[in-house]
Amino acid sequence: MSEKASVQAAATEGALGKRIIALATKLAEWSETPDGLTCTYLTPTHHAVAAELQTWMRNASLATHIDGVGNVIGRYTAADPAAKALIVASHYDTVRHAGNYDGRLGILTCLVALEEIGKNGLKFPFHVDLIAFSEEEGVRFSAPYIGSSAIAGRFDRRFLQLRDSNGQTLGDLIFKTGFDPETLASLARNPNDIAGYLEVHIEQGPVLLRENLPVGIVTGIAGAVRYEVSVTGAAGHAGTVPMGLRCDAGAAAAEMILFVEQRCAQAPTLVGTVGRITVPGGAINVIPGRCEFSLDIRAGDDATVGAAVTDVRAECDRIARRRNVAVIFTEVQRHQAVPCSAHMQAQLACAVTRAGITPRYLPSGAGHDAAVFGRVTDMGMLFVRCGNGGISHSPLETVTAQDADIAARILIDAIVNFAPARRASC
Amino acid sequence: MSEKASVQAAATEGALGKRIIALATKLAEWSETPDGLTCTYLTPTHHAVAAELQTWMRNASLATHIDGVGNVIGRYTAADPAAKALIVASHYDTVRHAGNYDGRLGILTCLVALEEIGKNGLKFPFHVDLIAFSEEEGVRFSAPYIGSSAIAGRFDRRFLQLRDSNGQTLGDLIFKTGFDPETLASLARNPNDIAGYLEVHIEQGPVLLRENLPVGIVTGIAGAVRYEVSVTGAAGHAGTVPMGLRCDAGAAAAEMILFVEQRCAQAPTLVGTVGRITVPGGAINVIPGRCEFSLDIRAGDDATVGAAVTDVRAECDRIARRRNVAVIFTEVQRHQAVPCSAHMQAQLACAVTRAGITPRYLPSGAGHDAAVFGRVTDMGMLFVRCGNGGISHSPLETVTAQDADIAARILIDAIVNFAPARRASC
Repeated sequence: MSEKASVQAAATEGALGKRIIALATKLAEWSETPDGLTCTYLTPTHHAVAAELQTWMRNASLATHIDGVGNVIGRYTAADPAAKALIVASHYDTVRHAGNYDGRLGILTCLVALEEIGKNGLKFPFHVDLIAFSEEEGVRFSAPYIGSSAIAGRFDRRFLQLRDSNGQTLGDLIFKTGFDPETLASLARNPNDIAGYLEVHIEQGPVLLRENLPVGIVTGIAGAVRYEVSVTGAAGHAGTVPMGLRCDAGAAAAEMILFVEQRCAQAPTLVGTVGRITVPGGAINVIPGRCEFSLDIRAGDDATVGAAVTDVRAECDRIARRRNVAVIFTEVQRHQAVPCSAHMQAQLACAVTRAGITPRYLPSGAGHDAAVFGRVTDMGMLFVRCGNGGISHSPLETVTAQDADIAARILIDAIVNFAPARRASC
Repeated sequence: MSEKASVQAAATEGALGKRIIALATKLAEWSETPDGLTCTYLTPTHHAVAAELQTWMRNASLATHIDGVGNVIGRYTAADPAAKALIVASHYDTVRHAGNYDGRLGILTCLVALEEIGKNGLKFPFHVDLIAFSEEEGVRFSAPYIGSSAIAGRFDRRFLQLRDSNGQTLGDLIFKTGFDPETLASLARNPNDIAGYLEVHIEQGPVLLRENLPVGIVTGIAGAVRYEVSVTGAAGHAGTVPMGLRCDAGAAAAEMILFVEQRCAQAPTLVGTVGRITVPGGAINVIPGRCEFSLDIRAGDDATVGAAVTDVRAECDRIARRRNVAVIFTEVQRHQAVPCSAHMQAQLACAVTRAGITPRYLPSGAGHDAAVFGRVTDMGMLFVRCGNGGISHSPLETVTAQDADIAARILIDAIVNFAPARRASC
């Protein structure tokens, strides 16, 4: 209790949050686009942001370097150089026309937390490695988690052959930044050297906002499966084919879409989304002969995803048979659920409780770098409330300085009281 | 009975149909596209087809000319030059990648009928004006019925300012063919000079095919109304917004589309079609914030259309309120229903019955030149069965020589026995 109290006393109420928002605003000055923030992998903008982050980490007395895939790493060193490292991380790349906080809030919250911890001269039996991952969103090469995968030892060498929209390969691009892509394997940490992984991130949804809570404890990264669905009926003249003689692919798809919505409302963490709907070559006076839609189903655990997919596919098949149309599901992506470790959740819950906040546990429907590390070490995530109805991936994305301040103080507490083994208690 | 019998005896069973199919195949040799038949307004292809039609009419001893909007007219003259004219017509332009019979079947059936009538040296107390209308489909200038409107005295002078995709105005184009657009008004027939209007056309639907009937008698051209419908909800992350907190514009649209289908199945001649569905900017991992769809509702009478529209709009409003989305209907087109005149239906029914076929009455869900003349004179239409499930506006469009033969003999009978006043009886 004494260490926590001393660190919290060091900063004026609200000062940490204000600094986090100011730093995020400063970082957003570099953007590839004038409207909204765009910072994609290994562009000049991206390099500028990395350099600024490294400067800030150095000013906070962290031992810093930028690695071969562009991750910016700052170590708050333990007294014992052979100690394990607690990784606290998130990403600094963005989607196109993004807001200021997706990814960056987590980096800056940890930076400010380590500044405070450093001012207090605290030493821990573990290093704290603040890592600003270079690539999480997958915008430039349609491959996400490039930064975190490299450090987690899960980088797929085939990624080096991926090309961006200019035809440049990832391997060539890394080479041009001065690193040999052949040495990327050496970035992988030995799991035995990692004490745990923590990530602070905006929720990107409306749950905490609706429940008037500044933070929440993530239970796991949702499992997800994605399909492209194609319904084929028979095109026809909108005026001349009686309703009873139609095989309308659009109406069949509409019935399927409504079933997705209904079925995916039947389990607490389950969500199902049809984000794209098209009638290829459709015209106002032609009965749709074909309708295509996308399907994204996620839940906190794989069994819940699997049961929903089974039901949705079976019902779509029934609808297709009854309407005399054909339906084809093509799986385009599948991610297994990654649970947050119970003892990391418990330690975060202790810190949240000590901040006077009721722990609210919620799954993450979005993917995060934490999912990569959840397969390697004990992983925990703290969500911070989003404003504006929970909107993200948009210039409308907001976080208040007050919430950022609370998150920073909880993170300081969680680091100061971090127990690498499974012996956490409040 | 004697005249009819003599004309029917003049041609070998099936010969008229074979000739109609052969002529349609010959006309299809001129096309703007190699795949499917394309003959759009006042192109070189279109001029070539007009010239060939005029040659065929002249060979059939009709008094022919091509008028200022490109209509090819061939008159089988009455003994009395001051007699009224029975107009028998359809169009020779096509949609892009069309079949051989939409429009042209009606022209060629009448041509072959007048060839037979001429061989028999029959004279009537009315002229028979075979008119091959130049423009019905509205492809080049997005304005349909240009040919028939001019003769019916319903040509809208503002059409002359319409531009094709090359920026050429309709007025300039007509001028280049050697006609003064200022004189187009003179093409309008005085309704007192018209004895009636008959059109033979392919059904463009599956009804006659399903009922194993070669021909049907049209009761009227359906009334139609078209809307663009826009549903606005709230976009959101597919993984982070729980089902209960969504305002999914796509799911809302799906529910509306199913209601259109259900409501429009509740009256015999009513049809409702959603031909286009899109989620603008939609992505697999984003809840649709907007969904747009087209709506086309038709029925044999305007009251049935109106009642369906009222119900559909009311239900869509209810769905929108319940789902907390907004829905906007924008009317883009409205055509009132045009009934076929009772006595023209009766005369066609007599001819059909004399051919040994049970009269089948059905509405036309598609628009036709007949609709233009239905506002000017007594109008009747004979539908001919389509093959291939009733498909039209496609190279897959088919008509059998046998059905064309039956249609030609029924048309000969209808012309021979035509009674311009309302005194038809079997």
